[in-house]
Amino acid sequence: MTRVTGFEVHDVRFPTSRTLAGSDAMNPSPDYSAAYLVVRTDSPGTAGHSFVFTNGWGNDVQAAAIRAIEPLVSGADLDATLDDLGGLSRRLVGDSQLRWLGPEKGVVHMAVGAVLNAFWDLAARRAGLPLWRLLATLSPDEVLALVDFRYLSDALTPGEAREILVAAERGKAERIAELEEHGYPAYTTSPGWLGYTDEQLVAQLEQAVADGFSQVKLKVGTSLEDDVRRLRLARSVVGAEVRVAVDANQVWDAGPAVEWIRALEPFDLAWVEEPTSPDDVLATAAIRRAVAPVPVAAGEHVANRIVFKQLLQAGALDVMQIDACRVGGVNENLANLLLAAKFGARVCPHAGGVGLCEAVQHLAFFDYAAVSCTSEGRMVEWIDNLHEHFAAPASVVSGRYAAPAAPGSSTEMLRESVARFTFPDGPEWGGRRVGSAPRHAAPERP
Amino acid sequence: MTRVTGFEVHDVRFPTSRTLAGSDAMNPSPDYSAAYLVVRTDSPGTAGHSFVFTNGWGNDVQAAAIRAIEPLVSGADLDATLDDLGGLSRRLVGDSQLRWLGPEKGVVHMAVGAVLNAFWDLAARRAGLPLWRLLATLSPDEVLALVDFRYLSDALTPGEAREILVAAERGKAERIAELEEHGYPAYTTSPGWLGYTDEQLVAQLEQAVADGFSQVKLKVGTSLEDDVRRLRLARSVVGAEVRVAVDANQVWDAGPAVEWIRALEPFDLAWVEEPTSPDDVLATAAIRRAVAPVPVAAGEHVANRIVFKQLLQAGALDVMQIDACRVGGVNENLANLLLAAKFGARVCPHAGGVGLCEAVQHLAFFDYAAVSCTSEGRMVEWIDNLHEHFAAPASVVSGRYAAPAAPGSSTEMLRESVARFTFPDGPEWGGRRVGSAPRHAAPERP
Repeated sequence: MTRVTGFEVHDVRFPTSRTLAGSDAMNPSPDYSAAYLVVRTDSPGTAGHSFVFTNGWGNDVQAAAIRAIEPLVSGADLDATLDDLGGLSRRLVGDSQLRWLGPEKGVVHMAVGAVLNAFWDLAARRAGLPLWRLLATLSPDEVLALVDFRYLSDALTPGEAREILVAAERGKAERIAELEEHGYPAYTTSPGWLGYTDEQLVAQLEQAVADGFSQVKLKVGTSLEDDVRRLRLARSVVGAEVRVAVDANQVWDAGPAVEWIRALEPFDLAWVEEPTSPDDVLATAAIRRAVAPVPVAAGEHVANRIVFKQLLQAGALDVMQIDACRVGGVNENLANLLLAAKFGARVCPHAGGVGLCEAVQHLAFFDYAAVSCTSEGRMVEWIDNLHEHFAAPASVVSGRYAAPAAPGSSTEMLRESVARFTFPDGPEWGGRRVGSAPRHAAPERP
Repeated sequence: MTRVTGFEVHDVRFPTSRTLAGSDAMNPSPDYSAAYLVVRTDSPGTAGHSFVFTNGWGNDVQAAAIRAIEPLVSGADLDATLDDLGGLSRRLVGDSQLRWLGPEKGVVHMAVGAVLNAFWDLAARRAGLPLWRLLATLSPDEVLALVDFRYLSDALTPGEAREILVAAERGKAERIAELEEHGYPAYTTSPGWLGYTDEQLVAQLEQAVADGFSQVKLKVGTSLEDDVRRLRLARSVVGAEVRVAVDANQVWDAGPAVEWIRALEPFDLAWVEEPTSPDDVLATAAIRRAVAPVPVAAGEHVANRIVFKQLLQAGALDVMQIDACRVGGVNENLANLLLAAKFGARVCPHAGGVGLCEAVQHLAFFDYAAVSCTSEGRMVEWIDNLHEHFAAPASVVSGRYAAPAAPGSSTEMLRESVARFTFPDGPEWGGRRVGSAPRHAAPERP
């Protein structure tokens, strides 16, 4: 019998603020970071890998939260644990002392997600399959057992979810073969950072078109004048055929959001993303009604399935942007995919950061294979940054993600990358002590 | 000039799970804990005290989050900081790297709240006033400058908030005098823990009536049969005149909530508290419509003003239960009080735990003096537990909180209590290592 022996948790930070890649209206200078978890076992070579992506400062807090979960799984029988990941999810999410720190949101919930995702990595490795393929082999009832329907029953019952999954059984093998041959659509955000000059924007857009992307995304929300200029420039570079989405990263209240979006509407927006607070179901719904037909997208900061459920119930979302690290792991994202299918929202996962492309691609592939069965208007975000630190990096060719093929969930980082970027003692950080690292002022409000 | 020199953060835990005081349907065995913060300055004797209340496990994570904020304020000019606590609030809440961990929710937001509250303690001490009196001396414009209206403008504009505050200027001095003489109403939850036997329940209820309380609260939600028996017993002890509220601590989905509450309605419920997820605005509104006229209460787990705003917009709440530690400190609770005033919700703060009575009483006193100007149907929760660990403990006599009189915010813990209950090295915990302390299984789902 293999036993879980404990956690190895690393505070890994990449100094991305030095280049302003990643800069947007809310995050002027992020240091893309990972609270990186390795679940160890007493079987040599058997380990599970995952992480929570953060923006830099506080990555140590996220690491501490992951460590706080260690005693809940340490010593467990690995196979028994992997055979009941639904039970593990309910046990970790429902822990009566830890849940006070959320409940089901923020640091503690992301930590639960990381632990679950590491066990999913172990499960996929045990099966010798990439995660999406493992998920796609599950029967409808096996998927249902993984989902926590608590707080969902007014919008999605297990019976309704089962119908969605059963209907998707037909043609699944063909869709899996299609994914393995042709991959899944991607769009790119690399051109659109707010910190880039117009010259950088143009050069990056030209590259994106040359690379075969059919959608690009620009950050907006700091200056309307700048946004109009940049969108005009973007349209002149990419033409009318390439879709252009915009992302406000939560900077607006409901009223100003509507005015701003209407001013950008002439540029034929593929969607407007995070127009306001990710907690604000009612304001997002009001914005969507007011700016129709501009589609509204959100999700990278949506705390859990309960908020996604309400966004869908309220008619606030055209596009659901699930994130691999924000919620309670693969399990809660299964609930999110089922909710999207029930309500007919398009799933276009959030990615970028560090490792988010690697992690979330599996969920989009699974969605196409076994839940929504369509990639119409759907695509996974792609940012060509920091992939070199992963053992099985995601790959986008001609605007499409290649199907992950290696066993596991693609979330293993290279040992040398972990060592080099460990904060504060890794060589990249020069042994700078916590507390004396550079700090950034809060963004100016637009 | 006085400078902030740094933070002292203590992981303080009380082993309350040994007695089952504090047991409810979601929290069968909490260890009431405080991530306790002392903001130190270079002026001898000048320090600010605050804490985040937690349920035990993970208190170290909360402490780490508080420490992560230290570099944002360390070295600051104390007087300049205290003169612009609105600016400090915006700076801490909006920190572009830390906010990824929320945003504005969970561990990182509670940490921001603790830091702000410690500076409020310093501000009140500097003024030589209890916090509620300091707040009541502020002009409407001074209060407005403390409030972050971001994401609120679709429900409450600064102009509307100003009208509420200006209207409350009339009679303020008289209300302050009245509060100082007669205090503010309390209700007690001490009798109603789920872990108590019927004999303990009866004895505690008799004591509550003898102590002059006009409202008691019982935990419900694990067994309907038990709840009916306990409510019948409660009514037989307290009679028809004493109000009886019930608290489900989030255990129900929307549908089951309605059925359960209707079954308890014959016992004339003062309110039903937390019938479902604190994130579920739409379900809470649906429940309230379905169980009317039973009032619905929530708030102790409501993450921020944005969720409170929506609960009010959606007509989900009769009673807003602000919590001193859950949100972004005094500043965000000012926003919550103004929202409640705008929408006509009764404010009945959540308290209990450790130190929550001490901290939140100031906000209720301020609300009566300078915002809502009424205590009609309003009261602060009271649980007679762990007050002996505070330098200026809250006091309830004849069912009313006495007006806090000591300068500060009543959140200073005794040094010997901090030392004795520090986890894991304090004598009460016997030097037990983190990781080997008792862990509790997740609650059985009712």
